[in-house]
Amino acid sequence: MMIVMKEGATAEQIDSVVERVKSVGAKAHVSKGELVTVIGAIGDREHVANLGLEGYPGVDHLVPILKPYKLASAQYKRGERTVVEIDGRKLGGNYFATIAGPCTVESREVMLETARVVRDSGAQMLRGGAYKPRTSPYSFQGLGDAGLPLLAEAKEETGLPVVTELMDVRDLEPVLEVADVIQVGARNMQNYTLLTELGRAGRPVLLKRGLSSTIEELLMSAEYVLKEGNENVILCERGIRTFEPSYRFTLDLMAVPVLRELSHLPVVIDPSHATGRRDWVLPMSLAAAAAGADGIIVEIHPEPEQAICDGPQALRTDGFAEYVRQLEAAAQLAGKEFAQV
Amino acid sequence: MMIVMKEGATAEQIDSVVERVKSVGAKAHVSKGELVTVIGAIGDREHVANLGLEGYPGVDHLVPILKPYKLASAQYKRGERTVVEIDGRKLGGNYFATIAGPCTVESREVMLETARVVRDSGAQMLRGGAYKPRTSPYSFQGLGDAGLPLLAEAKEETGLPVVTELMDVRDLEPVLEVADVIQVGARNMQNYTLLTELGRAGRPVLLKRGLSSTIEELLMSAEYVLKEGNENVILCERGIRTFEPSYRFTLDLMAVPVLRELSHLPVVIDPSHATGRRDWVLPMSLAAAAAGADGIIVEIHPEPEQAICDGPQALRTDGFAEYVRQLEAAAQLAGKEFAQV
Amino acid sequence: MMIVMKEGATAEQIDSVVERVKSVGAKAHVSKGELVTVIGAIGDREHVANLGLEGYPGVDHLVPILKPYKLASAQYKRGERTVVEIDGRKLGGNYFATIAGPCTVESREVMLETARVVRDSGAQMLRGGAYKPRTSPYSFQGLGDAGLPLLAEAKEETGLPVVTELMDVRDLEPVLEVADVIQVGARNMQNYTLLTELGRAGRPVLLKRGLSSTIEELLMSAEYVLKEGNENVILCERGIRTFEPSYRFTLDLMAVPVLRELSHLPVVIDPSHATGRRDWVLPMSLAAAAAGADGIIVEIHPEPEQAICDGPQALRTDGFAEYVRQLEAAAQLAGKEFAQV
Amino acid sequence: MMIVMKEGATAEQIDSVVERVKSVGAKAHVSKGELVTVIGAIGDREHVANLGLEGYPGVDHLVPILKPYKLASAQYKRGERTVVEIDGRKLGGNYFATIAGPCTVESREVMLETARVVRDSGAQMLRGGAYKPRTSPYSFQGLGDAGLPLLAEAKEETGLPVVTELMDVRDLEPVLEVADVIQVGARNMQNYTLLTELGRAGRPVLLKRGLSSTIEELLMSAEYVLKEGNENVILCERGIRTFEPSYRFTLDLMAVPVLRELSHLPVVIDPSHATGRRDWVLPMSLAAAAAGADGIIVEIHPEPEQAICDGPQALRTDGFAEYVRQLEAAAQLAGKEFAQV
Repeated sequence: MMIVMKEGATAEQIDSVVERVKSVGAKAHVSKGELVTVIGAIGDREHVANLGLEGYPGVDHLVPILKPYKLASAQYKRGERTVVEIDGRKLGGNYFATIAGPCTVESREVMLETARVVRDSGAQMLRGGAYKPRTSPYSFQGLGDAGLPLLAEAKEETGLPVVTELMDVRDLEPVLEVADVIQVGARNMQNYTLLTELGRAGRPVLLKRGLSSTIEELLMSAEYVLKEGNENVILCERGIRTFEPSYRFTLDLMAVPVLRELSHLPVVIDPSHATGRRDWVLPMSLAAAAAGADGIIVEIHPEPEQAICDGPQALRTDGFAEYVRQLEAAAQLAGKEFAQV
Repeated sequence: MMIVMKEGATAEQIDSVVERVKSVGAKAHVSKGELVTVIGAIGDREHVANLGLEGYPGVDHLVPILKPYKLASAQYKRGERTVVEIDGRKLGGNYFATIAGPCTVESREVMLETARVVRDSGAQMLRGGAYKPRTSPYSFQGLGDAGLPLLAEAKEETGLPVVTELMDVRDLEPVLEVADVIQVGARNMQNYTLLTELGRAGRPVLLKRGLSSTIEELLMSAEYVLKEGNENVILCERGIRTFEPSYRFTLDLMAVPVLRELSHLPVVIDPSHATGRRDWVLPMSLAAAAAGADGIIVEIHPEPEQAICDGPQALRTDGFAEYVRQLEAAAQLAGKEFAQV
Repeated sequence: MMIVMKEGATAEQIDSVVERVKSVGAKAHVSKGELVTVIGAIGDREHVANLGLEGYPGVDHLVPILKPYKLASAQYKRGERTVVEIDGRKLGGNYFATIAGPCTVESREVMLETARVVRDSGAQMLRGGAYKPRTSPYSFQGLGDAGLPLLAEAKEETGLPVVTELMDVRDLEPVLEVADVIQVGARNMQNYTLLTELGRAGRPVLLKRGLSSTIEELLMSAEYVLKEGNENVILCERGIRTFEPSYRFTLDLMAVPVLRELSHLPVVIDPSHATGRRDWVLPMSLAAAAAGADGIIVEIHPEPEQAICDGPQALRTDGFAEYVRQLEAAAQLAGKEFAQV
Repeated sequence: MMIVMKEGATAEQIDSVVERVKSVGAKAHVSKGELVTVIGAIGDREHVANLGLEGYPGVDHLVPILKPYKLASAQYKRGERTVVEIDGRKLGGNYFATIAGPCTVESREVMLETARVVRDSGAQMLRGGAYKPRTSPYSFQGLGDAGLPLLAEAKEETGLPVVTELMDVRDLEPVLEVADVIQVGARNMQNYTLLTELGRAGRPVLLKRGLSSTIEELLMSAEYVLKEGNENVILCERGIRTFEPSYRFTLDLMAVPVLRELSHLPVVIDPSHATGRRDWVLPMSLAAAAAGADGIIVEIHPEPEQAICDGPQALRTDGFAEYVRQLEAAAQLAGKEFAQV
């Protein structure tokens, strides 16, 4: 931690800061410039992080030097990248994977029909939500427990690994019976209770970035999972909230190279929730793949007009094979390969 | 719902939209302007909300007409304002209340000493967290269950009602034993599981706005609680995330008059988390009261330099009585009174 | 314009709004729903836009129906796209162009050396700023008038069209002598005086989106130029300001499909200013091209370490030909072609 | 400037950074922590600011230590505050001033009638725009030169100093004939040409913060004026752009204590443009004054329904005296006094 003093801070104020630094067992390293004095506090990471010197007399501001995450950092694996592998499908490192399916599990027919298209189009995994977090208490909240057997049947028939969301720690057990990857929704990104339980459960986690969470906060939430010994965390950017009203969310593709520099964890993009509109899904998917994303999680539906939720953003199953082909061409531009089974 | 067609939308496209509106059991009301056609969809709120016409051929965009919340709306109580009353303290309507205490329950001494200052300074309620949501898994996470008896003792001794946070539905029972008001933190504002359980529990809820949640989303989260029959929801603005780096969060005081127009629920302001700095707490507290807020929830500590968390934002207990006096003067400017006990 | 009344608005309030609508010479079309009344105001666009009914008794909010821009809208050219053509180079429609050069014109040697690399690598235009808008009055402000002859010489030698920035209307004449495209910087996007003069000057304009300007505001600024009879406006997204601190700006690639839907004008992306870092320029360039952008404007320098400004974001001239090759492969994925000369 | 190296940066990379620091004539001060090395670069401010080490091999990020502004900083005047004094009215330091008038100069009658109310209500200065920056080229752009004599007449009759906006450097001379304070609009905050000319003109400047400009950028723009020898700059916060759609702009009142800490310059608040609605102007005005603002600039009109622009946000002249009384009570809470004439 560097403590930057105000111009004109007095010797007394500097001493007082130094004393505070020493009081938490850290070393203080004073560096006086012509105008400004900077004090480095070197010692235990958490102690130093909690110096509480903001607003102290003579203190201008504090600058953290160490990243607050460890296990999620690129340095932790010394440059090696995490590849999440499920039943032969690979995601991360040089491997790109497409995850597709309906927004919510609606019915046996739709689920099975969609799953077959996903498999036949060459995508790697199946998505579908039984529990749906909805802004309105009056909206359809998902089939709940009743949706899980339909996912299981689709998995059984197609052999595709299943990605599904968990909202409530009390539902962990039934979800573990069907999910190959457990999704944490954007609104739960900082539900630390849930993250800790998923860390203990050990199943791969797809962690969505909160609508206004920083990249550092996303990595800190991943750290909650990693800390419990679960190494398989997939980060997911799904659009952030900005001032722009002409579309739903701003898809932050800068997060792709930045996350790949800061962390060894794979990064996937969700173009469906970001755009909210079918015709914007393809360009943003190609952009994501070209930017170096490790995968895409996308919503498809045989008849989007009849979908119970988020129909306007679902690609049609008809045409999905061509979408996968184009997506893979864009991923190849970024040097990716695909683990087909 | 109004469906605004693109300039140059064809008659066929308009018919297709009308058909879609009718298919969900709503009436379509077509209004052709010189350049643009607008189609009103009138019918059941939820059906109309899920038309899924975004991105439809010829459709420019959709404009919702009805607010998505009902019970939280000002219209629902026909102009009457909700006053939350606890042991003679009142908050809402014309009543202003000050809620104060340490960020986290640290020790018996600090808790009791602070509680006495809160009572003696004329503030109305005591705050203190046993469970602390922390961005870092390595930070102090609160005393947990062990903190609750300390809150109970402080309440017993001072007679002050207690506001404390619940993070995990599995801790609801012990929290209900001590809390007069249960706080939902900003990061849990859209933890719908938690909101529903609190709606059922019936205890007053202080609901913090998410760091980047819209005012409408805050009211939708309140609706989750109200819908279960719990009428006592206190809304809390605690700073939103913006592009500005020179302070921690942007305290959105516009939320005060806007929420008071849209909803009958009381609105309190948390200047401590927004500013993150002691010397900015007073001006923002006065501003909040002058803007018409129904209360303030503020952090105080006998020795902020020794506080386990968020010391730099805690007011000193020494001087707190004067703070309350100034705050009440500002609230009086906005026409408020105080229910002292 | 639709005027949405509050739930429970009185008949008197509705009448008063209707009267106001008629007073500006527009027709009022009242549509009563079960809960809410909506009043359509149909008439002259500007009159209706200035009804001033926000906050009127009983009025909830106003919803504009017509887009505020006309000449910039896709409808204005009935689906045809503007292709800006300069000396055989084409940008817009199906044509993709790469514009490259140093951030600022520093010296004759750097300018000529860079220009030759731009030409030899197959890029279509040369960029370089003589006038530089700088946040700090103490920073290098560009060579000014002295930079223009160096641009002219580079153009003469390589035959490349030149893109350069104008900051002050009083410099228009000398800039017109060398510029094939005149750039308006992000901080001047709403400098209406400058836009109007450029509209009159008739030279193609590259208009950068303000750091926090909406897509609609960008199109309104383009409208200022178009209205004066200048049809050649190129829109440029260069990163917007968000809450994310881990990089300089958030490159808003959603703007690409959205602008291409709303407008006939070409859209180029500036990955250099958005990212601020050389190693993030390539992935974001590929992403932009794959998303369907009509071009890229990128900074290159023979020796970025010695560049007077923005060296860290400049690609090296060494390797630039390979960059152009990859970029064109990504643009081809999005269906683009290139007008080589 | 501190250069923070990545964890695991090699000795070679560190040497290379040190060499670069020395190459610009600065001293390098290397401080090796257990995990991370930090290199301090000490030397000429501008040289050090342009090291260009972002993205350099082994470099994690750069942290500027010195503020980029000097003349605008609180340190520059060693704690003394700038009081702008015009004809006996004072603004800044302990003095609070109310500036009021119509959005735009519309007609002789409205201008004079409003000016008399401003004077009779005890406000200190008169505002009114002859030149209006408008998002749309089709909107009323102000009376232009024809508006200036009307302002002059209102000044002559009431004795009130006049605040009016300048948009185009070419209009400086006529504006200097009537303006006591020259306003720079939010969209021109970074129009450096304009700022420099105003610095030279020497007349007091009211500088509005851009819609998404940081506080530091606002101070940098003030620095452009100060640098030319004009010491009378009044900073103005008028609402920033955020994700919240339920009102026009987010009024950033945190800017008040923060600017007063960082700078000696006075800070005024414009509640009219921020809120866009008459009934929200009073609460936000009181909040601004209670937060410690040095003044308010507010729009009033004898008949807002007939105003040519921004009627919904104008207070009625009828009732304005009571508004001033309440505002001054709030300012007194924050320790202010008033220089009545």
